[in-house]
Amino acid sequence: MSGDAYTTLCEQYEQIANIQHAQSVLSWDQQVTMPEDGTPARTAQLSALSTVAHDALTDDVIADALETLRANGESLSADEKATVREIRRKHKRATAVPESLVAEMSETSSEALSVWESARADDDFDAFAPYLQRHVELNREYADHIDPTRDPYAVLLEEFEPCLSLDHVESVLRTIRETLIPMIDAIRASETTLATDAFTAQGTYSPADQEALCRDVLTTLGYPWERGRLDTAPHPFSMGTSFDARVTTRFNETDPLGSLFSTIHEFGHAMYTLGLSDDAYATPLGEDRDLSVHESQSRLWENHIGRSRAFWDVLLPQMNKHFPQTDTLSVNEAYEAANQVYEDNLIRVNADELTYHLHILIRYEIERALIAGDIDVAEVPAVWNEKYEEYLGIRPETDAEGCLQDIHWSHGNIGYFPTYSLGSAMAAQLYAAAEESIADLDSQIAAGSFDKIREWLQTNIHQHGARYETNELIKQATGSSFTADAFVSYVTEKYGSLYNLDQDFHVAK
Amino acid sequence: MSGDAYTTLCEQYEQIANIQHAQSVLSWDQQVTMPEDGTPARTAQLSALSTVAHDALTDDVIADALETLRANGESLSADEKATVREIRRKHKRATAVPESLVAEMSETSSEALSVWESARADDDFDAFAPYLQRHVELNREYADHIDPTRDPYAVLLEEFEPCLSLDHVESVLRTIRETLIPMIDAIRASETTLATDAFTAQGTYSPADQEALCRDVLTTLGYPWERGRLDTAPHPFSMGTSFDARVTTRFNETDPLGSLFSTIHEFGHAMYTLGLSDDAYATPLGEDRDLSVHESQSRLWENHIGRSRAFWDVLLPQMNKHFPQTDTLSVNEAYEAANQVYEDNLIRVNADELTYHLHILIRYEIERALIAGDIDVAEVPAVWNEKYEEYLGIRPETDAEGCLQDIHWSHGNIGYFPTYSLGSAMAAQLYAAAEESIADLDSQIAAGSFDKIREWLQTNIHQHGARYETNELIKQATGSSFTADAFVSYVTEKYGSLYNLDQDFHVAK
Repeated sequence: MSGDAYTTLCEQYEQIANIQHAQSVLSWDQQVTMPEDGTPARTAQLSALSTVAHDALTDDVIADALETLRANGESLSADEKATVREIRRKHKRATAVPESLVAEMSETSSEALSVWESARADDDFDAFAPYLQRHVELNREYADHIDPTRDPYAVLLEEFEPCLSLDHVESVLRTIRETLIPMIDAIRASETTLATDAFTAQGTYSPADQEALCRDVLTTLGYPWERGRLDTAPHPFSMGTSFDARVTTRFNETDPLGSLFSTIHEFGHAMYTLGLSDDAYATPLGEDRDLSVHESQSRLWENHIGRSRAFWDVLLPQMNKHFPQTDTLSVNEAYEAANQVYEDNLIRVNADELTYHLHILIRYEIERALIAGDIDVAEVPAVWNEKYEEYLGIRPETDAEGCLQDIHWSHGNIGYFPTYSLGSAMAAQLYAAAEESIADLDSQIAAGSFDKIREWLQTNIHQHGARYETNELIKQATGSSFTADAFVSYVTEKYGSLYNLDQDFHVAK
Repeated sequence: MSGDAYTTLCEQYEQIANIQHAQSVLSWDQQVTMPEDGTPARTAQLSALSTVAHDALTDDVIADALETLRANGESLSADEKATVREIRRKHKRATAVPESLVAEMSETSSEALSVWESARADDDFDAFAPYLQRHVELNREYADHIDPTRDPYAVLLEEFEPCLSLDHVESVLRTIRETLIPMIDAIRASETTLATDAFTAQGTYSPADQEALCRDVLTTLGYPWERGRLDTAPHPFSMGTSFDARVTTRFNETDPLGSLFSTIHEFGHAMYTLGLSDDAYATPLGEDRDLSVHESQSRLWENHIGRSRAFWDVLLPQMNKHFPQTDTLSVNEAYEAANQVYEDNLIRVNADELTYHLHILIRYEIERALIAGDIDVAEVPAVWNEKYEEYLGIRPETDAEGCLQDIHWSHGNIGYFPTYSLGSAMAAQLYAAAEESIADLDSQIAAGSFDKIREWLQTNIHQHGARYETNELIKQATGSSFTADAFVSYVTEKYGSLYNLDQDFHVAK
């Protein structure tokens, strides 16, 4: 009985997962290869797939199978129980929301994407505002259908972090905020000078050379090209399955580190996807756990490896090959340039490891206020600019480099931004555990050997898919519940040393 | 009543059409951009979409709406009636075939594609044979579900030519066969020597230069890049909607005409797709009529324009720009090289306008014999090679350049090949009508002006989508039923003049 219901449940879910993967391919195509006038048809296609997936997830076949398994599911294995748990969660959420609303959200996203692209190019927030307004309304409506009694933002956050409570999230964010604000103050007070213009002073870097470097670095890190590719996109992202996980980046002629670190970042995402089980494809155990775990993988590769002193021993010679003008740089100068804390950067994706989280906190506070109705969409540019002044001491001159810089709100993703900071905290906790487990990890990195760390991540995180809930996954991998403690230790040590600070963030005498 | 049923029918069909367009995007990606190991997941995704589209097309919602409209559909407009006619045809065919068979065919196709690619690369027919065998069996089963009383090949042909009977098709093919066999004999007997090695004698042509030329030519012909793109694929094809119709080609370093004419050919297909009505997107009136009409568009551009003497006035200077080694060629030499009748070409897609149809007749005869059970799959290479010897006087040395050369059977498409010859015949009939209507068409082409011919095709063919059945569409556009008569006149005049033949294909004294 329960065996039959379980089989039915998995078959139906397989169909849904495949449709969702098809949506991802269409979305990759839209951002990477689709001609500019293709939007109306693509919007309709994505909306149709969204409706079909929603119909399948809310179908009585699933409801009946879940009901049978609720009564008779004790004999299932632990993996089967985890599978049922994940499908039940998605089914419950989907049934709460009318199909028409799902289709409308998908259609709005698809339309808003190209509007956002033009609005950003033209620095025209007013063009984008109606779409953001619509997204806010649709998101409120969405949360209301799921649970009208709770803070709608808490409900929306669960779209991306199904197993972390808003309280848990806020405790992590609080630790980050309380650590970084005095630390960044101390850094600004520090008289230590890093080689901040090591790269920018060496002229320009052609996109073709940058791309060649990114390809070399991906190969060095162990990216399996037979299951991947590198392309450019206005907003870098990764997409895929364990069979085919792609990386995108973008190029800025004056800043070779931008494309490099975005490539390494997306490589981390892609490696998570590639590390999922082929055999569990189109089941919850073959899917990523959630966004914080996904982001922990990209951050770990980008920051803990890519921005480490050890990695620059490998990276700088590769850079020299593609950019002869960097021949005169020392590894230390390059390392410093890659880790400078910016005083005047307005763009989240160009931010350093520390100020990055202030960019996130600003977005988080604005979107919470939008959902709560505390501010209007029309006020977003002003609020944004004020918060940048307050937190970062800088003020955007245009909305293009202000509140229009990110793609997320054009997708209607509200509750997404905090997952970036959660990911950083989680990356630190995982990397500390990996260092415990792999004695000479730092020397391996300096020697260009990444097999052990890839294997550790695959074994402890990737292969499990959504087998464990988030905190359990982190406990299994690291021995402790998820906190920002390891992140605090990491940034304190690294930036204390770079900027000559003592433990209490005083400038060391 | 009928209004409601009509609306319901269209809404349901829109969903189906969008899913099918999503399938096309996934398939384009598989052939153009997907990493090599992506096949298992892509197979599952395409199969899931195929099942979903099939479910939707056979759904009671459609059956009920069609039933209502059968009784109460008299008040519908002509366009609405055409819409209902087309959906009814598809619904009827789909309901006859079990969903499991459709899914199996789709899965077999997707698996067979990569097997075929390797088999062709390795010249290993045995590796591909089990897939071809499976396709033959599945196709027989498919035809049997639709109508067990008829020749299964006639039933399969309707998959691609829903409105042309096998009798009509055979009468066109017979005329082509009876014209071409004596004509090709006469050409071989002719002592006229064309400048056949005009291009091949000039060294090699880099893929990058060939691509640049193809892009220039597409621009000259009027390809709207904001709705299209050019990529490479192992077997060139086009894909899309009126919003986004893409062209692919492939490069051979010794033969710049190959990529050029395949690009112009796929341009013709893409222009048909782009000429469909945006407003009718995701309805039958926004879809191509059938494969012969599609092929007539590619053939018209490739042969009647691309291989015309007039076009070489425009083309040769563009070629000279990209290939300085062609500077010494005259327009006449280039024209002759582009129209030589090959004596030793084994590859269909490299064939000239005349022998091409013998390549088609061979495939048509083999696939009819396979479906009829007159030959086994294991015999295909031997039968293939014998027929090449008999019809073309040449024998492939490998299966890679023999029966493995085409992608079609890997897709399980049986009944598809004849549509190429039908397309050529139809192209000739349409081009003759366009010449009647556009007095100075030839001079316009020589002057590089293609607006009038694009407009004529858009008005007389593209904009109608599936409004008219095939023969009616051709009658509306040309004033006559579809025959091979115009094709006979066209080849008689063109090749008679090139090879100095009289009307009865005797070598002129």
